[in-house]
Amino acid sequence: MIYLDHAATTPADPRVIAAMNRCMEQAWLNPSAAYAGAGIARRTLRLARQAVAGMLNAEPQEIMFTSGGTEANNQAMALARGGHAVVSAIEHASVLRAAEALCREVTLVAPEPDGRVRPEAVERALRPDTKLISVQLANNETGALQPVDEIGALARARRVPLHCDAVQAFGHVPVDVKALKADMLSLSGHKLYGPRGVGALYVRQGVLLPPLLLGGGQELGRRAGTENLPAIAGLMAAAELAAEDMAERAAREAALLSDFCAALTRRVPGCRLLAEASPRLPGIAALLLPGMPSEKVIARLDAAAILASGGAACASREPGPSHVYRAMGLCEADAGCVLRVSVGRENTPEDMCAAADVIAGA
Amino acid sequence: MIYLDHAATTPADPRVIAAMNRCMEQAWLNPSAAYAGAGIARRTLRLARQAVAGMLNAEPQEIMFTSGGTEANNQAMALARGGHAVVSAIEHASVLRAAEALCREVTLVAPEPDGRVRPEAVERALRPDTKLISVQLANNETGALQPVDEIGALARARRVPLHCDAVQAFGHVPVDVKALKADMLSLSGHKLYGPRGVGALYVRQGVLLPPLLLGGGQELGRRAGTENLPAIAGLMAAAELAAEDMAERAAREAALLSDFCAALTRRVPGCRLLAEASPRLPGIAALLLPGMPSEKVIARLDAAAILASGGAACASREPGPSHVYRAMGLCEADAGCVLRVSVGRENTPEDMCAAADVIAGA
Repeated sequence: MIYLDHAATTPADPRVIAAMNRCMEQAWLNPSAAYAGAGIARRTLRLARQAVAGMLNAEPQEIMFTSGGTEANNQAMALARGGHAVVSAIEHASVLRAAEALCREVTLVAPEPDGRVRPEAVERALRPDTKLISVQLANNETGALQPVDEIGALARARRVPLHCDAVQAFGHVPVDVKALKADMLSLSGHKLYGPRGVGALYVRQGVLLPPLLLGGGQELGRRAGTENLPAIAGLMAAAELAAEDMAERAAREAALLSDFCAALTRRVPGCRLLAEASPRLPGIAALLLPGMPSEKVIARLDAAAILASGGAACASREPGPSHVYRAMGLCEADAGCVLRVSVGRENTPEDMCAAADVIAGA
Repeated sequence: MIYLDHAATTPADPRVIAAMNRCMEQAWLNPSAAYAGAGIARRTLRLARQAVAGMLNAEPQEIMFTSGGTEANNQAMALARGGHAVVSAIEHASVLRAAEALCREVTLVAPEPDGRVRPEAVERALRPDTKLISVQLANNETGALQPVDEIGALARARRVPLHCDAVQAFGHVPVDVKALKADMLSLSGHKLYGPRGVGALYVRQGVLLPPLLLGGGQELGRRAGTENLPAIAGLMAAAELAAEDMAERAAREAALLSDFCAALTRRVPGCRLLAEASPRLPGIAALLLPGMPSEKVIARLDAAAILASGGAACASREPGPSHVYRAMGLCEADAGCVLRVSVGRENTPEDMCAAADVIAGA
């Protein structure tokens, strides 16, 4: 099997699995228990919070652990409940659907054809009653990095809180909440060889966020529920492993995709890379293959045991082509002919040649 | 270490950890992915849903997986949003706090001094605008089993949906949603030697429950977020293991606690078992030790490497003694002198003697 869908999910690193097992065997007591015996569980939780905070340039008490990226994004949207929010049109469904459900009104900001949202467009959408701006750090379907730092600067100037969905970016490019000037930032474990079912939300000190999950008051009262410590320990391990080889990995992945895209644009008439001129995540490429519906290409690849996708797996239940490619200005026909290829640690140049051969043959 | 706090959490069974590891190694693809290669992930999810449904006497499509008991309880309360709910006064914080936050009005039904809520008391609290009744199957602090089947019958007669929090009971006593006449029922993995961070909510077909987490439309549109398949596979393994030895385990645990309580009532003046005359979970005993504040007893036990609690771990952040013991009619002083002992698979009669010696010595 050649796996080219790392943006959908990644396999947990054996060292992450080992960290989870260690936690399940040794630190399984309830961190909320009153007895000193639960100290190892409390310590594990504290260390993980420190580690994740450190990687984001945040303070430990600014990190709340969640059940994943969707919960983190939904939780962040609660800040705009009943009010007006400015949200980029290419956000993940967990931002868009939550904003629609919780806010009185949502203004969607479309990106330019290069896949990037302009700070000026965000600024034009602001109103005196805007309660929240939400712009992702990197798009999950094109990899395009958004100018979050510039949007953060204008959000600060206009005193509107900024949420940044960094689920796809965290572990792949450096993420610094202070440089981004983000008031909230979401991340998830399973996009960086970490566990499923765990994520985190950075909430800047002073931001009063109404909790989504209520009950025992865990996570400093921000998120009820017995802490999923094995997964939290796994997230910490994954984040540390990701930080270790981030630069080399990025260079390798960018080279793999650059050769792959060059081969395809040479061999497939009209083929082009979306968001080509924009800064992008190293591991994601969205290729427009005119006249080749993505489901057919995916099926051809699938038959050759090569796994790729036509966009977000989370969007597989939505009718019609991806809202991201449409928002970038592609017509409906073209938006249905985009193949997303996302590479990871184990991919080789041979994998990419095999995939290019199947696509060129289709 | 002698662990007598199984009601707070249980260690994951090695076979559960093995099932999770197998899933992380072999079925890690995103079940929402379009390619056939993700079939093993989809199959794993389907099998787990069938297994959990089967154990509850429910249909697979009536089971939604959640991030745990708190989320399942919070999700269930969404049915009463903006309306009136009838909730027992001894529910878990995740039911009580969610009901307070989501409902326009909540009527709390106190139990009798035996720790059981009376169906007549629930009936008296009903109003024409009542949108939901929520009564737990077993109390997490006394183990008292509630007459949910009778409450279910009257709920059906009055056409009010019934939610049952079975988090503490599932895996320890048989749970049959049809016999209970429950419209929704919550359970959690980590109370039955299963994984942290996973639970399930049974939602009877025809009940239209607004989703709590929005986004990719996973779980048949009821719960967004990439499925936490390793934990779901672990929950299935734990539930199957629990079903295998449920009767023998119940008999063993009841015998351990019965001898323990007999020894303590003999040796500690005024000591009595709460909810003694009520049907109870086999593994939980709440002992009133008059004049012995529970934090002191817990500290004495802790010093002897014996772990027990004064009530729910989730309530450790609440000021004052447990709302459960207070609702049963104990005065504030007595409610602060209750020790909860909850036994599990690995406990022996020697463990219980050691604990009784420390308590009698205190």
